[in-house]
Amino acid sequence: MSRPQPASQHTVRRHNSALVLDAIAAGPGSSRAAVAARTGLTKATVSSLVDRMIGAGLVVEGEAQARPGPGRRGTALHLSPSGPHGLGVEIGVDYIATCLVDLTGRVRKRWLRPSDNRASSPGRVLAKVATAVRTAVREEVPIGGLGVAVPGLVESASGTLRVAPNLGWREVDVRGELDRRIGLDVPVLVGNEANLAALAELWHGDGAADFVHVSGEIGIGAGIVVDAQLFEGVSGFGGEIGHLPVDPRGPRCPCGSRGCLERLAGQDEMVRAAGVSGPEELLTRLAAGDRTALMAVRSAAKWLGVALSAAVNLLDLPTVVLGGTYARLEPWLREPLEAELANRVMSAEWAPVRVVASSLGAEAAVRGAAGGAVRAILADPDPYVASVLA
Amino acid sequence: MSRPQPASQHTVRRHNSALVLDAIAAGPGSSRAAVAARTGLTKATVSSLVDRMIGAGLVVEGEAQARPGPGRRGTALHLSPSGPHGLGVEIGVDYIATCLVDLTGRVRKRWLRPSDNRASSPGRVLAKVATAVRTAVREEVPIGGLGVAVPGLVESASGTLRVAPNLGWREVDVRGELDRRIGLDVPVLVGNEANLAALAELWHGDGAADFVHVSGEIGIGAGIVVDAQLFEGVSGFGGEIGHLPVDPRGPRCPCGSRGCLERLAGQDEMVRAAGVSGPEELLTRLAAGDRTALMAVRSAAKWLGVALSAAVNLLDLPTVVLGGTYARLEPWLREPLEAELANRVMSAEWAPVRVVASSLGAEAAVRGAAGGAVRAILADPDPYVASVLA
Repeated sequence: MSRPQPASQHTVRRHNSALVLDAIAAGPGSSRAAVAARTGLTKATVSSLVDRMIGAGLVVEGEAQARPGPGRRGTALHLSPSGPHGLGVEIGVDYIATCLVDLTGRVRKRWLRPSDNRASSPGRVLAKVATAVRTAVREEVPIGGLGVAVPGLVESASGTLRVAPNLGWREVDVRGELDRRIGLDVPVLVGNEANLAALAELWHGDGAADFVHVSGEIGIGAGIVVDAQLFEGVSGFGGEIGHLPVDPRGPRCPCGSRGCLERLAGQDEMVRAAGVSGPEELLTRLAAGDRTALMAVRSAAKWLGVALSAAVNLLDLPTVVLGGTYARLEPWLREPLEAELANRVMSAEWAPVRVVASSLGAEAAVRGAAGGAVRAILADPDPYVASVLA
Repeated sequence: MSRPQPASQHTVRRHNSALVLDAIAAGPGSSRAAVAARTGLTKATVSSLVDRMIGAGLVVEGEAQARPGPGRRGTALHLSPSGPHGLGVEIGVDYIATCLVDLTGRVRKRWLRPSDNRASSPGRVLAKVATAVRTAVREEVPIGGLGVAVPGLVESASGTLRVAPNLGWREVDVRGELDRRIGLDVPVLVGNEANLAALAELWHGDGAADFVHVSGEIGIGAGIVVDAQLFEGVSGFGGEIGHLPVDPRGPRCPCGSRGCLERLAGQDEMVRAAGVSGPEELLTRLAAGDRTALMAVRSAAKWLGVALSAAVNLLDLPTVVLGGTYARLEPWLREPLEAELANRVMSAEWAPVRVVASSLGAEAAVRGAAGGAVRAILADPDPYVASVLA
């Protein structure tokens, strides 16, 4: 038997730090003794790890608890609201959204800048992203990680955007480019906007653990959550619902195929079919009972139902969450969509599919990006702690 | 603190029995000492559990190993080929298949009986199943469990067949009915045939851990395997690919919808379009290069590609396994199907989809049913051991 190596001691501390922080996150106000009881670690180990995390700004002590016995062991522990923040950025087709969230998931500040990214090169857009990041950094809160949501296929391991049809981008090393331009020296997470939106819905929604979140903007994306985990497939390319061929004899799609969902139920098609200038006017017309607008949305609901019935037939998911623009259209989409699902889902008689609006709406993707950055620290705090205390 | 309760001692033994049997299954010929090293249990615990499992017929001792030191500790341990067998039954649309497999997964015997189950009531078909089970029981091997594959929606928890459109059955308590008719006093597993076929492919196929297995008979079913686990959804209703609406303006389907995959790419449609009497003649004509037959299969491949591209776009699966009749049609299906997938799967350029034929073909479902029964014992041997030793 060899003596324990520093590497393995480090691994143990890393594992235990995550356990301790998770216990504090799950039970805000817990004492060190309560954390020890919950994690099965000794009080001495918990105290030592908690002290490091207080030193690094992850944890704060609150009021002393009314509990017999001496010492500071009864002090309430909380995630620090002035600890590391997650900085989320969403590169939309026609906007850049940014938000800062603290360790508890609370939004500290958000920004939204219109930006015609369809007409710009990746370099120009990423320069705007860098500016947005610098603006957020001026808030003078510690940044623990950067999450970037993009409307395209992202290889999750490398952070490379393979293709974003609605931006006209291909093969953009988003993580590398931002590292180079910003030099924030924090972990950078790059993800598909629909997947990140689904995660935000999981964290902040009505508690459903199995659902498909479908968000309609100019593109249509889906994020699949199973057993409270994002299901993104072997390479991270899952949830690509926008180019499901819902009507193979239908109109040509810019992707080269025919009758893709996006072509028949995307925001551009609804706006065109309703004869309006944009989504705001569409909503006004719908509220006024305009027949053309109602028919445009009803048609989109029907095609959405064809695509979502494929997802539910394959995955047996009990809930569809309408996100993005669809969240605001829910009063008009829900009924025809539920009818289509009842008709096309084989198991609907025994497991009816519930359709609900996302509570986060168009903000879900940027919240998911920021939340992902924060949750990476919660899941594995030691590298952050070590970098602050170094 | 209270004293340990019998219930928790039993739970520990149950858990450890599974660990020990798993170690023997994973390393045939292991000694008790090797099993102890692999599981982290004491040699005394391993010896005691192994003795119980030898007594119950799950494990046999082989040759003594050439290894220094006294005692029987060096004896090689194996799963017993004469131990409990899994009895699998598949209720097809026009046949009943049965097979017996031993603990190692080897097929001991198989039966195939033509049976026009479409034209029969559930009661008459289940009476035939009971006869098939009695025939298998006459083989005089111990039966450890019964697995039943049915071509319809099965609620996995209750073993209830909700609906089997191609049999015309609804709400059949398959597990309860068979318990009543056979009284085998063994666990009865009821599953969707496509899901069980996918499991058999996982156990006996080429080692892929992420795939969709699509089997074409009169109905079309899919089984989705992710990370070496069957993905069957919240209620067990996943993998329903047969009624994906691939051509919503297409021909009426008996299910009430239009242009379902089954209607356009099922065995009946291929046979009809090729102008042949059945799948055997279709294969003969294809081998002879008959143009009508080739076009019929090419059309089926195209629609299969539309449905499978939906599955791959949503789930990012790298492999499609062609099962059932499709396995025999693979030489004619593969190329047009791969072309359709390359065209319709958004990530195909970075993660091309591989199409392969199942090595088990039409036998996969019954093998999965029998294997499922055997694997339930391997995963949790103690109830079986206790019942034999009682």
